[in-house]
Amino acid sequence: MPKPLNIALIGTGFMGRAHSNAWMSVNKFFDLPRDAVMHTVCARESKDARRFARKWGWAEATTDLGRVIDNSTIDLVDIATPNHLHAPQAVAALEAGKHVACEKPLAGRLDDAQAMRIAAQRAKRQGIETFVWFNYRRCPAVAFAHQLVREGRLGRIYHVRAQYLQDWGGPQTSLSWRFDVSQAGSGAHGDLNAHIVDMARFITADEITEIAGAIAKTFITRRPLAKAGPGRKTRYGRSTVDDCALFLARFRSGAVGSFEATRLATGNSNRNCMEINAERGSIKFDFERMNELLWWDHTLESSLRGWSRIMCTNPGDHPYAQAYGPPGHPLGYDHQFISQAADIIKAIAGRKPIVALPDFEDACRTQKVLHAALVSAREHRAVKISEV
Amino acid sequence: MPKPLNIALIGTGFMGRAHSNAWMSVNKFFDLPRDAVMHTVCARESKDARRFARKWGWAEATTDLGRVIDNSTIDLVDIATPNHLHAPQAVAALEAGKHVACEKPLAGRLDDAQAMRIAAQRAKRQGIETFVWFNYRRCPAVAFAHQLVREGRLGRIYHVRAQYLQDWGGPQTSLSWRFDVSQAGSGAHGDLNAHIVDMARFITADEITEIAGAIAKTFITRRPLAKAGPGRKTRYGRSTVDDCALFLARFRSGAVGSFEATRLATGNSNRNCMEINAERGSIKFDFERMNELLWWDHTLESSLRGWSRIMCTNPGDHPYAQAYGPPGHPLGYDHQFISQAADIIKAIAGRKPIVALPDFEDACRTQKVLHAALVSAREHRAVKISEV
Amino acid sequence: MPKPLNIALIGTGFMGRAHSNAWMSVNKFFDLPRDAVMHTVCARESKDARRFARKWGWAEATTDLGRVIDNSTIDLVDIATPNHLHAPQAVAALEAGKHVACEKPLAGRLDDAQAMRIAAQRAKRQGIETFVWFNYRRCPAVAFAHQLVREGRLGRIYHVRAQYLQDWGGPQTSLSWRFDVSQAGSGAHGDLNAHIVDMARFITADEITEIAGAIAKTFITRRPLAKAGPGRKTRYGRSTVDDCALFLARFRSGAVGSFEATRLATGNSNRNCMEINAERGSIKFDFERMNELLWWDHTLESSLRGWSRIMCTNPGDHPYAQAYGPPGHPLGYDHQFISQAADIIKAIAGRKPIVALPDFEDACRTQKVLHAALVSAREHRAVKISEV
Amino acid sequence: MPKPLNIALIGTGFMGRAHSNAWMSVNKFFDLPRDAVMHTVCARESKDARRFARKWGWAEATTDLGRVIDNSTIDLVDIATPNHLHAPQAVAALEAGKHVACEKPLAGRLDDAQAMRIAAQRAKRQGIETFVWFNYRRCPAVAFAHQLVREGRLGRIYHVRAQYLQDWGGPQTSLSWRFDVSQAGSGAHGDLNAHIVDMARFITADEITEIAGAIAKTFITRRPLAKAGPGRKTRYGRSTVDDCALFLARFRSGAVGSFEATRLATGNSNRNCMEINAERGSIKFDFERMNELLWWDHTLESSLRGWSRIMCTNPGDHPYAQAYGPPGHPLGYDHQFISQAADIIKAIAGRKPIVALPDFEDACRTQKVLHAALVSAREHRAVKISEV
Repeated sequence: MPKPLNIALIGTGFMGRAHSNAWMSVNKFFDLPRDAVMHTVCARESKDARRFARKWGWAEATTDLGRVIDNSTIDLVDIATPNHLHAPQAVAALEAGKHVACEKPLAGRLDDAQAMRIAAQRAKRQGIETFVWFNYRRCPAVAFAHQLVREGRLGRIYHVRAQYLQDWGGPQTSLSWRFDVSQAGSGAHGDLNAHIVDMARFITADEITEIAGAIAKTFITRRPLAKAGPGRKTRYGRSTVDDCALFLARFRSGAVGSFEATRLATGNSNRNCMEINAERGSIKFDFERMNELLWWDHTLESSLRGWSRIMCTNPGDHPYAQAYGPPGHPLGYDHQFISQAADIIKAIAGRKPIVALPDFEDACRTQKVLHAALVSAREHRAVKISEV
Repeated sequence: MPKPLNIALIGTGFMGRAHSNAWMSVNKFFDLPRDAVMHTVCARESKDARRFARKWGWAEATTDLGRVIDNSTIDLVDIATPNHLHAPQAVAALEAGKHVACEKPLAGRLDDAQAMRIAAQRAKRQGIETFVWFNYRRCPAVAFAHQLVREGRLGRIYHVRAQYLQDWGGPQTSLSWRFDVSQAGSGAHGDLNAHIVDMARFITADEITEIAGAIAKTFITRRPLAKAGPGRKTRYGRSTVDDCALFLARFRSGAVGSFEATRLATGNSNRNCMEINAERGSIKFDFERMNELLWWDHTLESSLRGWSRIMCTNPGDHPYAQAYGPPGHPLGYDHQFISQAADIIKAIAGRKPIVALPDFEDACRTQKVLHAALVSAREHRAVKISEV
Repeated sequence: MPKPLNIALIGTGFMGRAHSNAWMSVNKFFDLPRDAVMHTVCARESKDARRFARKWGWAEATTDLGRVIDNSTIDLVDIATPNHLHAPQAVAALEAGKHVACEKPLAGRLDDAQAMRIAAQRAKRQGIETFVWFNYRRCPAVAFAHQLVREGRLGRIYHVRAQYLQDWGGPQTSLSWRFDVSQAGSGAHGDLNAHIVDMARFITADEITEIAGAIAKTFITRRPLAKAGPGRKTRYGRSTVDDCALFLARFRSGAVGSFEATRLATGNSNRNCMEINAERGSIKFDFERMNELLWWDHTLESSLRGWSRIMCTNPGDHPYAQAYGPPGHPLGYDHQFISQAADIIKAIAGRKPIVALPDFEDACRTQKVLHAALVSAREHRAVKISEV
Repeated sequence: MPKPLNIALIGTGFMGRAHSNAWMSVNKFFDLPRDAVMHTVCARESKDARRFARKWGWAEATTDLGRVIDNSTIDLVDIATPNHLHAPQAVAALEAGKHVACEKPLAGRLDDAQAMRIAAQRAKRQGIETFVWFNYRRCPAVAFAHQLVREGRLGRIYHVRAQYLQDWGGPQTSLSWRFDVSQAGSGAHGDLNAHIVDMARFITADEITEIAGAIAKTFITRRPLAKAGPGRKTRYGRSTVDDCALFLARFRSGAVGSFEATRLATGNSNRNCMEINAERGSIKFDFERMNELLWWDHTLESSLRGWSRIMCTNPGDHPYAQAYGPPGHPLGYDHQFISQAADIIKAIAGRKPIVALPDFEDACRTQKVLHAALVSAREHRAVKISEV
């Protein structure tokens, strides 16, 4: 009988639900050295915390983060709060000797991320682990792309072309913390470019060294504050974050990349997509078809070369597929979190995750790229990552 | 606090796992009048039952189906066993006054299905409900197609073109109960055509009245019995079921249809697909891209007509999407079972499911179509459903 | 300087234009042993013949087919007239010692086709060649599929799944010769199933031996006669042909097939599509994307198997691509006719065409399959090809 | 009988063939006020000129451009030569009072382009027209996209995302004029970005005002000089052009764009693709499927919104489709040139082309954008178009 791993979750929003589902399901689908125990959920409002705990099966509910930090039975603190809270919460938990799994981006601002990185470094010496929920790494198609590169199937990489396109940010969308630079740090940039910078680094095993140019743009500067009652006039507030952010990048290997994040790409509700072109092959991924990896094998005889649509659902062949169904039984968004929860448990138990897990150190490199891109956009010039 | 619904599951194979996951998750994703309680799991072997119960959270494990039937606290018996066991198990549970949810096909043979239909009819007078796990009805794209037809968006239907293509049945695949006609009733036919006949009836709200012609064919007659040890010769056994079954059908409305099920369609691990062409529009579905419905609106101005790829993941718009994520967050195979579990709970509580649930009566109509197709294949002639 | 090949064209409709373009272009794109000379065009109305000749560059125009037949300088008679005229025109031309290229289907009725076959057999002894414009054989993707099968890349074939879907035949479409059984022989069946039966035979190099069942159905029995003037009432006439025809088939090799032709498949203006599943691989083709062949190589390592979208436009690799552009420059519908014209010229000069050309003998086998399917539909039973 | 338009073609390479086919075919497919006459072809080598003339039907062949310029019967000079020859040839022809149709890009260098623009301006006062063969404007899907924007169907444009991806430029590809900066001006940039900058300006009817950042990179600096004989060692030469060029752009309207051209995008033989996202709708185009436009109508009811794949082949609906086949009969690469030839003839006759034709003035604006991007790449900073 595996030893329990007592978990405290902070945050009860969409991510809080995704994480809860992951902890609830992980030991069902995976055989693991530790048993995830849903110990405590922490939220700002007591009623909300209790309701959420009852719904998702957390044993306790609290509004007092201090009690969580002080509770020596808690092994892992799982942070699913707005970006500006990541640093204080994570640092406190790490200092209390708890493993921390933090939602992405690591932080809203680079200095916060740096502080988290330093705290993680210190904690690591005590055997404390950190994790960042860059969930797409555990999408089987993405993890498989990463493996193909590692096996040398692509050879020299020339191009990375990454876009994270959403379209929920039109003029009718009302202000939330996501449009407030002081809470979110940035808009589409931190939210979405964070994912594709992480994915590009993960798949290529390469690092971005320079931003060649960038645009960060707020198209919709004024947004409705909230639903006005009947007969009331809608009031408006100022959006202080980018609606889109695009940048061009150079990698250490010489590869070049283009990145784009936007909330105004009408027709793309959640299209996280990437193409990588290399000497011996190419890959293409689109999250709307998350079970598929497009693969071009340039070493095949030329008459038979084509973009091959691989369903990454074969238990014997594709990462994580073993845990779920037989071939051709698609996974969904939620499954990525279950798979990441499994790898987190493995890592805490000293086992190797199926593919690499990002820790705070690693996520801080992503954060530097994001920061350099904003500098480039502001100063209308190329910016080396070593400058930031 | 909703009243508990005590459930007993029979069977611990792939379907047992899918149902367990559904019962575990259903009250998390849906707000429901009853609380699913995972009371007892029943398997042939005691060790297997205990291991499964521990893994998935069933409170009790047993090998004695009689104890389940006799246990008055059990409300619902969920059957996930081989086809030839459905009838005796379902009839016993119904006679004991329990609701029954049975895996598809309803039975391996038509006479078994008829017996189940009669038992269900009798039970229904006591307020006992029956359900069949035709899970694809709860794939959001399929449920949405059903709604489009009901809203009159397609008009007069001309064509139904349905295929359920798998490719796991090559010559290397060893004998299992699925290749034994006495246990399975038939091969690809009962396993796969059952799904697409149900889907066609569900989406069109029409009934098949005649089989115009059919082929049922066993390509691979000899299969390896099991893995031979080192130095041992592989032994072979006889496959007594169809590897594929195709038939042409006429619907009551005059529409014509073609149906095909196969386990030898290399390149298609689990492609359940259907196209319907009608006077005012057409739809196309492919389970490998289960979150998408292709929709052709023939009432649009002609220059703008096209096959529109609808991501059926909008909470406000598409059936079941409300329960899960924001737009563009794909669902997987498992989610269909969670959604069906939700509708079963609603139905037992006297509420309306989101889309129609098949009961034994309904599934028996599907079974008659399957049976008539086999007669047609055997007798090389057209067969009316009213003949069987 | 290659010797001229004097051509006479009969018919000035859509096919007359496609053939004219082919003869005009063929020696530009291909290096050939004979020079296509556009000698005479023949039409029913004199004005139409003259206008067409001027437009397309035919040297002479006539309404007198006898003059064409009697003209000893004419080498090849190209027939692009309604189906019931094929037999008398082709037989006359063959008896006059001319090569004949005839539009498909070979004829509207089987007895006409048989007469043509016999005339062709006799003529062949004098070195006279016959050709049928089954243009899709020269679509590079289709020709490439044929080559893959010949090279043994697919192995034992299990399934052929062919549909030719059009949607121009709705209730508003007015009567033309195509809806008159006495002129057309049949509706969608002869027009469209002719193509896919030929394609299936061509790609698989196999023959259909039995029709297991069939449906031929007229959904729209009454059609408007023609545009009524203002204030006039629309008059209607009777459509006497099938709007759709479906059948199931058995091949000599044991493979099974399903075929469907329809003019009522809303959303499919001209979708000629086919999938073939075999032991070592599968192919899929859709004419709306005529430059692509989907290819599944089952001999690849299993993790990398996928449907590979091959752009069949590589000059060095794919049939006919050499004649046109560099890779990635799509061909259109017209190019198939240019390629067939090239192969016809080669065959007349005693050279080998790039892929096999159908002659009257070959097309008569397709015609028998079509005929047997109509018998099956009428008599509600399986029909062997040897019966007809 | 329409008056002849006497044409002289310079250049007998791939583009010379494409233009010849266009002039040969244009009066067959279109009813036009002038008759294209293939008067003279001009090449560097006499044998080549004569062979080409015979093949394609040019009445005369010459190596002396002066004779063409001096020949008063020539109405139109069609230039299909390497980029550095465009300016001297075009200016000479314009000064001789001839209409000029020039291949793209307008020139290899901006100063050449400016000289051409000035010559065109002067000639225009005498009624002389200039044209640039940006052929993709006449791809029906692209022309239709342009019309949708003009009709106001997209509303405010947020994003332009354009890539022209090829993969023929790997390390094995030998040196040709295209890799010599003195002849070509640039590499992928002038060759491919020229097309997509023109397409973006054409579809959006907007102008690029600033390059926010750029990368131009030569991955393969050393290329084999030519096929060495047996036993000879391959010799290498220096490639002096970019293999890829990427840039970010701002449009006058506020829209932002990203552009990328490359010859190293393994798996993309000729993928010219573009996505435009706007307030009321979005479009997507991929030349490998040149007959399709993907269209997202954001004004539809939300449950039915999807990417609609429009086959732009309806004679009554889509630009240029009228000239060719019935719906669903795909066009190829060549057809774009036939359509452009038709519009050139119309414009010379004072009629309106089906969609706007680019003249030298217009193409010079594209050239400035290309030039500014190179400055941006070289100077690692944002560059306003007004600076160049």
